[in-house]
Amino acid sequence: MGLRKIDIHAHILPVEWPDLKRRFGYGGFIRLEHYAPGRARMVRDDGTFFREVRENAWNPERILEDMDRHGVSVMVLSTVPVLFSYWARPQDCYEWSQFLNDHLAEVVARHSGRFLALGTVPLQDPDYAIRELERCVCQLGFPGVEIGSNVGGRNLDSPELFPFYEAVQEFGAALFVHPWDMLGQERLQNYFLEWLVGMPAETTLAICSFIFGGVFDHFPRIRVLFAHGGGSFAFTLGRIARGYEVRPDLCNVHAVQNPRLYTGRFWVDTVTHDPRALRFLLETFGPERVVYGTDYPFPLGDLEHGRIIDELGLEPEVAERVFVGNALQFLGLTVAEPGTVFSRQR
Amino acid sequence: MGLRKIDIHAHILPVEWPDLKRRFGYGGFIRLEHYAPGRARMVRDDGTFFREVRENAWNPERILEDMDRHGVSVMVLSTVPVLFSYWARPQDCYEWSQFLNDHLAEVVARHSGRFLALGTVPLQDPDYAIRELERCVCQLGFPGVEIGSNVGGRNLDSPELFPFYEAVQEFGAALFVHPWDMLGQERLQNYFLEWLVGMPAETTLAICSFIFGGVFDHFPRIRVLFAHGGGSFAFTLGRIARGYEVRPDLCNVHAVQNPRLYTGRFWVDTVTHDPRALRFLLETFGPERVVYGTDYPFPLGDLEHGRIIDELGLEPEVAERVFVGNALQFLGLTVAEPGTVFSRQR
Repeated sequence: MGLRKIDIHAHILPVEWPDLKRRFGYGGFIRLEHYAPGRARMVRDDGTFFREVRENAWNPERILEDMDRHGVSVMVLSTVPVLFSYWARPQDCYEWSQFLNDHLAEVVARHSGRFLALGTVPLQDPDYAIRELERCVCQLGFPGVEIGSNVGGRNLDSPELFPFYEAVQEFGAALFVHPWDMLGQERLQNYFLEWLVGMPAETTLAICSFIFGGVFDHFPRIRVLFAHGGGSFAFTLGRIARGYEVRPDLCNVHAVQNPRLYTGRFWVDTVTHDPRALRFLLETFGPERVVYGTDYPFPLGDLEHGRIIDELGLEPEVAERVFVGNALQFLGLTVAEPGTVFSRQR
Repeated sequence: MGLRKIDIHAHILPVEWPDLKRRFGYGGFIRLEHYAPGRARMVRDDGTFFREVRENAWNPERILEDMDRHGVSVMVLSTVPVLFSYWARPQDCYEWSQFLNDHLAEVVARHSGRFLALGTVPLQDPDYAIRELERCVCQLGFPGVEIGSNVGGRNLDSPELFPFYEAVQEFGAALFVHPWDMLGQERLQNYFLEWLVGMPAETTLAICSFIFGGVFDHFPRIRVLFAHGGGSFAFTLGRIARGYEVRPDLCNVHAVQNPRLYTGRFWVDTVTHDPRALRFLLETFGPERVVYGTDYPFPLGDLEHGRIIDELGLEPEVAERVFVGNALQFLGLTVAEPGTVFSRQR
């Protein structure tokens, strides 16, 4: 049987990890406290609660049950953004990234063909980030890495990141951009708004930083996917393009093209929770640029595993692209039918 | 001839105003420096440049030419958000608001039937704000007021604002919410992003604050319009509603309904620069909730005065609603055909 669905956006935690505060000598990290069978709390090491999680956040056997129940052939696993730790000392984040990536590699190896992984890198230090990127791709066999939408408040057009992008392009790695450390978070403390309003804005900002900062132009072969349908970018593209047209003095300092011309240049996932919004994405970016993803296992994710895509009643070849083909393109992988052994495109 | 188009979102400046820094004894205000015929600069009183403007920002005769050229029957004028001055001493902002509102009233009076005005109020002090609201409605004859999307960083669900909303409802005033003082602005300093990404996020946050903060529920008769098509709200409503469903502990602290049930509860304008986005708004909010507006005279505005609406090829009765009927509903006005004399609905 061929591949039915590749979920490009799913997160996993190691079942346990070292006490990072003790190890590195300062706080700010996340602990995982298992307090009942199949239940744990993510807690900041100052004791403040971050998030409740269940077994499907760390146990691959449990995850596979969900995958089998919903016809998910492959999940592409990445770490949970709160673990990025870009604020930490670079050397420490480098070590921590290696720990997380080794765990991802182990999960992938132990369940042949069911999981792929996008690694994490210490993006606050591009040298370390490049070193860990190389290890992810060349040693661990990952198709790419996940990064946050900013690094300590610096947007993704920051010149310090260009050597990293150069390496991403050179290694043919896929780059998954996930919102984290949301702008204006002091204004978003109530009603889950950091996730509901902050994340889409943060992702829109990340895409605009790639466009207006000239990242797409400098690295024409880089493959990037933005989470949660690209945030609000598609919907506010009219305003963004209008801004480019009427204020080139502000928008076009890097001699880039009209933002509308970059819509075929990157991928977005399907995490929108709205069939009309999803159709809007397909129209804006094209059916070859929208990739099935869920944000599993978190409650704000698509825990019906693509039902809104089914409900759109897409042409079979479009649906196949969204569920499988586009993910392979983004990841730079080919698959020898009817098996599920992936190999890198040449 | 009846009304063809009522532009709900247009800004005007007085041609000159007092030196506010000298008058109030501290800085932070905006000056208008006329430096050539028909040209002026808005400059912060520390000397930093804010924005270049032309005669159509202050001269009603010049504005009327544009209106006549584009078949705009009536413009609903409001002040430019940078003039709100919610950061100033309340007494000073109260005096300044009176100055701006007196100017608006004068423009309305001098060009009978062509302009309406939404006043500005010192929202940092609800008592003064209510006093000036009352003056706007009862003395100056305005159908309502314009407010910013936050007050000194406090969102619009702030309990201090509830007496103001009570008064707005009591006076039957229309409330136009315009984004200003954008969240995360330190991250938005390049490429006009404070306007392109910050404003839509800010407006989305304002709508979410009204919903999750229970403002709509507390004031069932309040009439509110959010600028720029409501920012990203319509497009990210799937995510917002999903958040409400899965995290009621965070989203539903005020016993509100599902966010999807508030879409018929407020108005948005048409400033999207994208016909597909505009159609999305009509589908989300309903054809009776989308109001023609331009953000005239600024370059990020719809300076083709509704051409994208024409291009949608709406049913004539829908187009009439968008161009005229919905504005009257929002403003609480009726008009005796075939004239253009407005009277308040009872």
